[in-house]
Amino acid sequence: EIVSVIQRHVSQQQYLHGKKILISAGPTREIVDPVRFFSNRSSGKMGFALAEAAANLGAEVTLVSGPVNLQINHPNIRRIDITSAEEMFDVITDHFDQQDIVIKSAAVADYRPKFIHQGKMKKKDGNYTIEMERTKDILATLGEKKKHQFLVGFAAETDTPIEYGLGKLDHKNLDAIVVNDISSDGAGFEGDTNIVTYINKKKQQESIHQATKTDIAYKLFEWIIRDLKDDDR
Amino acid sequence: EIVSVIQRHVSQQQYLHGKKILISAGPTREIVDPVRFFSNRSSGKMGFALAEAAANLGAEVTLVSGPVNLQINHPNIRRIDITSAEEMFDVITDHFDQQDIVIKSAAVADYRPKFIHQGKMKKKDGNYTIEMERTKDILATLGEKKKHQFLVGFAAETDTPIEYGLGKLDHKNLDAIVVNDISSDGAGFEGDTNIVTYINKKKQQESIHQATKTDIAYKLFEWIIRDLKDDDR
Repeated sequence: EIVSVIQRHVSQQQYLHGKKILISAGPTREIVDPVRFFSNRSSGKMGFALAEAAANLGAEVTLVSGPVNLQINHPNIRRIDITSAEEMFDVITDHFDQQDIVIKSAAVADYRPKFIHQGKMKKKDGNYTIEMERTKDILATLGEKKKHQFLVGFAAETDTPIEYGLGKLDHKNLDAIVVNDISSDGAGFEGDTNIVTYINKKKQQESIHQATKTDIAYKLFEWIIRDLKDDDR
Repeated sequence: EIVSVIQRHVSQQQYLHGKKILISAGPTREIVDPVRFFSNRSSGKMGFALAEAAANLGAEVTLVSGPVNLQINHPNIRRIDITSAEEMFDVITDHFDQQDIVIKSAAVADYRPKFIHQGKMKKKDGNYTIEMERTKDILATLGEKKKHQFLVGFAAETDTPIEYGLGKLDHKNLDAIVVNDISSDGAGFEGDTNIVTYINKKKQQESIHQATKTDIAYKLFEWIIRDLKDDDR
C-alpha cells in the first residue's frame, strides 16, 4: 500500500502532465430568502479527492466548488467558490473551452425557488407552497458544446442506478459516467468511502467495491487515462 | 481587555455555578428526499459561544445542536446533535423541566416539506411545487410550559427587528429576547461578529455594537444574571 501510494505520487506524476482538468464539487444552495435555502447532502469530498489526485498526476486543475467545509492547497489547483447552480453554470461554461477533461462531481440543484424574497419571509399560520423551476442542465450543455473535451458525469441515485447512469451517459453525450448507489452503506455523500461503477462510451463497466474517496479518485483517473488513449486524443 | 478576559474566566466563574442551562444552536435540516433538504444559514457560532461562556461561568450546559461544523470540548458541556425541527422539539421538551435557563439560539425551520420521498426524486421537465407545513413552535411551547425557567429567545430579522422582537417577547411569554439585525454588516449567521440588542420583560434594552460572538455571549450572561437576581429566582 505504501509502495502504491508512492507510485501514485511519483511515477504516475507524468500521466496528466500538460492536461487542463476542470472538476466541480460539492452542493449548490438555492436561496428562498436571505436566510433560508434549498441544498443537498454533498460534502464535496469526492470532488476534492479527484482534484488532489489530478494535481498529483501533473494536471493543471480548476476546482469549482459549492459551499463545503474542505480546504485544499496544491500549486496545481486553482479553486473557485460558487453558491448557486446559476453561478456554477456560468463559471464552468466560461472555463470549458480550455479544458481537456471535465468531471462534474458536484451535486448541482436541479430546481430552485422561482421567486426569491428580498427580506426574510415572516411565518404565517398554515401551509404554503414553494414554486420551483428547473435550473440549467450543466452536463447536457457541455455535452452539446464539447469538441475535444473528455466529459465525465456522476450519477448518484437510490433506485436502479446503473440503468439510470447508462441513460445519462447517452442522453447527455458523455465520455464516461461514474455511478454511485447512494443507498448502500459505505457509499455516497458525507462519508470518506464510496462504492462506484465507472462506465465509458463503449459501455465497459469497472466497479470499485468500498474504498476511500482518495483511492477511488486515482482508480478513476487510471480508467480516464486509458480511455483518453483509446480515443487517441 | 486581557484583564476583562481573565476576570470572565476566573472571578466570574461562580456566577452560574449550580445552574442548569440548555442552549440550542445551529440550523435544522428538513429533508425532501434522501439527498435534498431545506435549511438556513445559521452557523451555530453564537450558540456555541453561549455554551462555552456558560460552561466557563460554572453552569452545567446541555447544548442541542443542528448540523454545524463546530467542535466543542468542555467538561461542563453535554452536546446532543439533532437534524430536524421535530428532533429539536423532542430533545428540548424532554430536557426542559430540569433547566434553570433555556436559550434558544438555534434557527429552527418554521416550515418543512409536507411529503418526504423515500427514494431520490427524479427530475422532470418544467416547474413543480413543494408543499410546506408548519413545524411545531418550540419557543411558544416552552413559554406555555415554563415554571421557574428563565427563557431567552432570539429574533433574526431583516425588517423592523426591534418591533418584531418585542412582539415575540410578549407573544411567546419569554423572559428576554436577543434581537439580531441580520441585514447589517458584521451581524448575523456566518461571521464571527454580531450586533445584538437584549430586551428583558421590563422592556429594558441593552445594545452591543459589533463585537465577537464570544464577547457578546459573556455580555448576554451579565444581563441574564442581573435579570435572574431581579426576579429573585
